[in-house]
Amino acid sequence: MSPAASDTGVVELLAALAYGELTGFARLAGDSELAPTSAARAELGRLAAREFRHYEALEERLRALGADPQAAMAPFVGAIDAFHRRTAPGSWAERLVNAYVGDGLAMDLYREASDFVGEAERPLMQRVLQSEGKAEFVEQELRKVVDADPAVAGRLSLWGRRLMGEAMSQAQQLVAAHPELVAMLVPDGDLAELSRMFTRLAEAHTERMGRLGLSS
Amino acid sequence: MSPAASDTGVVELLAALAYGELTGFARLAGDSELAPTSAARAELGRLAAREFRHYEALEERLRALGADPQAAMAPFVGAIDAFHRRTAPGSWAERLVNAYVGDGLAMDLYREASDFVGEAERPLMQRVLQSEGKAEFVEQELRKVVDADPAVAGRLSLWGRRLMGEAMSQAQQLVAAHPELVAMLVPDGDLAELSRMFTRLAEAHTERMGRLGLSS
Repeated sequence: MSPAASDTGVVELLAALAYGELTGFARLAGDSELAPTSAARAELGRLAAREFRHYEALEERLRALGADPQAAMAPFVGAIDAFHRRTAPGSWAERLVNAYVGDGLAMDLYREASDFVGEAERPLMQRVLQSEGKAEFVEQELRKVVDADPAVAGRLSLWGRRLMGEAMSQAQQLVAAHPELVAMLVPDGDLAELSRMFTRLAEAHTERMGRLGLSS
Repeated sequence: MSPAASDTGVVELLAALAYGELTGFARLAGDSELAPTSAARAELGRLAAREFRHYEALEERLRALGADPQAAMAPFVGAIDAFHRRTAPGSWAERLVNAYVGDGLAMDLYREASDFVGEAERPLMQRVLQSEGKAEFVEQELRKVVDADPAVAGRLSLWGRRLMGEAMSQAQQLVAAHPELVAMLVPDGDLAELSRMFTRLAEAHTERMGRLGLSS
């Protein structure tokens, strides 16, 4: 793998994460506007503001690598926008599931990434990871919703499955379209390893849904 | 004015500002989701994240004063939500006007407030003021919109007038319902001074719209 290909892969990874954070931020903040209480609004707002800080950190790193952040994100706009369009929540409980699943999946992705990126990128991944795991509010709210009406658990299980299905489908399209990104994810072009990574992400999702008493 | 009444007034002021920042944040971030480019999305996101930091600073100060932020904000939810409901923008240009007018008006409010609050609150007002004035992106975008289609200037002038009218109307209702807040704003109960403050806010708005070639 040439250094140039590696650099391209790193820029692509950071840019995809950056656009994910930027759109995740807008989605969460938009959800906060529809929160039933001002306490819930403030908590979702806090999660959203945290995602924006991640975006800014990624943007800064892209600039440091000589990339134009907007240009670097452009190839990922289609897939990530499509994901959000196809997973627009229809109720407050679905909004909470989006936040819960999205936050968990993002955390898993940064954890995977911190294993395969070079030393230069690791501190940024670690910094984001340390600021993650603050979605307790969302988890508590969801637990209340599920406990109050067990029938809702079935619907939310379905919704979580749809979210993960859409995420995986868009992710598969992204990696198919970005060979340098794949080369960085699996240096020897070992597509079985890539597949194992997707499996790990799906398993972590299942475990996370299970903690709420939801099937996946 | 008893110290207790003054404390109530301070808590009311901080709580009204806090709820304004929290809802302004959600509005701006929601606007960012509809931005035509990812650069515009990032810039509106930056403005929104800044408002959330203000919210957090106000929340922290309310707690330090022994107030429960959510309870303190509750009396202001109705008027501020009504303002946002009545000023939901219908186009990207209107969204930009909302951000421009809202940011300018907020800055003016903090400036007024830093004149009449006690020494204890002044550092917070100053801190927010120093982080304000970063809406250049919004101003530049609006200028482009107006320059590209002079006919749009008339519509946006009307829109700006409506925004300011709604803001003043809700503000009048708020002060009427909160005598301690008024007592802090105009210590001697001088309602003419309160009226002069509203006049100053309206004049600053006119000046701000004029800078974009918009009438008010």
